[in-house]
Amino acid sequence: MKKSNKKVNAIIIIIGNEILSGRTQDVNVVHLSKWLNELGVKVEEVRVIPDLENSIIETINEVRKKYNYVFTTGGIGPTHDDITSKSIAKAFNLSYGYHKEAYKILEKYYNPEKFNDGRKKMSMMPTKASLILNPSSGAPGFIVDNVYCLPGVPSILKSMLSGLNNRIRGGKKILNKTINLRTVESEIEGSLEKVQNKYEDVEIGSYPFFKQGKAGVSIVVRSTDKNLISDCCKDIKDFVKKKKIETI
Amino acid sequence: MKKSNKKVNAIIIIIGNEILSGRTQDVNVVHLSKWLNELGVKVEEVRVIPDLENSIIETINEVRKKYNYVFTTGGIGPTHDDITSKSIAKAFNLSYGYHKEAYKILEKYYNPEKFNDGRKKMSMMPTKASLILNPSSGAPGFIVDNVYCLPGVPSILKSMLSGLNNRIRGGKKILNKTINLRTVESEIEGSLEKVQNKYEDVEIGSYPFFKQGKAGVSIVVRSTDKNLISDCCKDIKDFVKKKKIETI
Repeated sequence: MKKSNKKVNAIIIIIGNEILSGRTQDVNVVHLSKWLNELGVKVEEVRVIPDLENSIIETINEVRKKYNYVFTTGGIGPTHDDITSKSIAKAFNLSYGYHKEAYKILEKYYNPEKFNDGRKKMSMMPTKASLILNPSSGAPGFIVDNVYCLPGVPSILKSMLSGLNNRIRGGKKILNKTINLRTVESEIEGSLEKVQNKYEDVEIGSYPFFKQGKAGVSIVVRSTDKNLISDCCKDIKDFVKKKKIETI
Repeated sequence: MKKSNKKVNAIIIIIGNEILSGRTQDVNVVHLSKWLNELGVKVEEVRVIPDLENSIIETINEVRKKYNYVFTTGGIGPTHDDITSKSIAKAFNLSYGYHKEAYKILEKYYNPEKFNDGRKKMSMMPTKASLILNPSSGAPGFIVDNVYCLPGVPSILKSMLSGLNNRIRGGKKILNKTINLRTVESEIEGSLEKVQNKYEDVEIGSYPFFKQGKAGVSIVVRSTDKNLISDCCKDIKDFVKKKKIETI
């Protein structure tokens, strides 16, 4: 698929009290962001919001107009605190109920004696939603307009993304290159700023780290243009050499 | 310190392109949320936003009116992409420059020949801010009104929190109890919903997990009232026993 040159952006909405309370470490943002970046979609915001209908409705209706894509994770299971599907239906003013296709998928997935009310509930969503197939545990996610609703369990979420590759229309892919230096930020900030000022269409990030008791800085250069990245990295390496800083 | 009964809430704002791009896994939310919970402050939202002045100003000015406390992480280092301090000054319409006390702290922390422009820059912030002392690497964070600005490096952030314990005025602490079951959510959703409906002031969360190839569900019961938690857990254990579900 030929990628357009336009910028395409996204927001990730993590729905879950367990993330807000600190009980659970989110790992879906890293995974979704990297996957979207490969498709030429830049994640420009992330929000973590509670399992509250009003929060979900208000947030979705605010952000779906601001971003090209909205990805939600969490809250599509069968228990009382899984209210994402119903809230999305309300946000879009759509009818909510058993989704015929999703119901059939689950009916096939489970033995008849195992297909209880809880499992049936996982097919309840906006009845006109498109489905996101779930190769690992049956229950599908769904799409309404530009809002993509995925589960919160990381292994299940991951298994569902490749099925979406052809559905996402990304822009030009954001490329990046990292230069790791044995220095501290305050030794390079002036020179680095000069390079940043020279390259408007390049985003230079500076990230200090400590490894085995030693300080270092990762310089990350990001752009859609690989030649610009290359030129910019050359300029950085030039001042690094002048300052006799070790690259690692 | 006697805790009041009122609810006190907070939002965490993670400022950093490296989190949005998926390059870096955030771990500060878990740490801040748990620390705040101990102090009786409930984190009700998290946002991750880019290193862009307008994003920071708009977000801060929106959320500082909605929440009792706002915690930001990231963007207070010495490089060009560290724009949190300047943006916060602009959000509050305060003068930005060398903070006298912060400057003195850094002057003492570094040998005179090491106290270069980059290191001096770490004392630039709203000049009337209160400081958050940094026992691990010198450069302080700061407080303006209800906005607390902390660094992004997790080990440094962690070292700065205990100095804030007496400054945060929390409400009643949210207590929790977890019951782990060898089951799947769809087997218990009906019974669990009945218990949730009986206890309005208790928040029951249900979280499926997979460990060593076996499925399980963690039921987390949260409330400020330990007696309510205890009653609610008893009701859950009753239906678990009736259904012959193993607790783990």
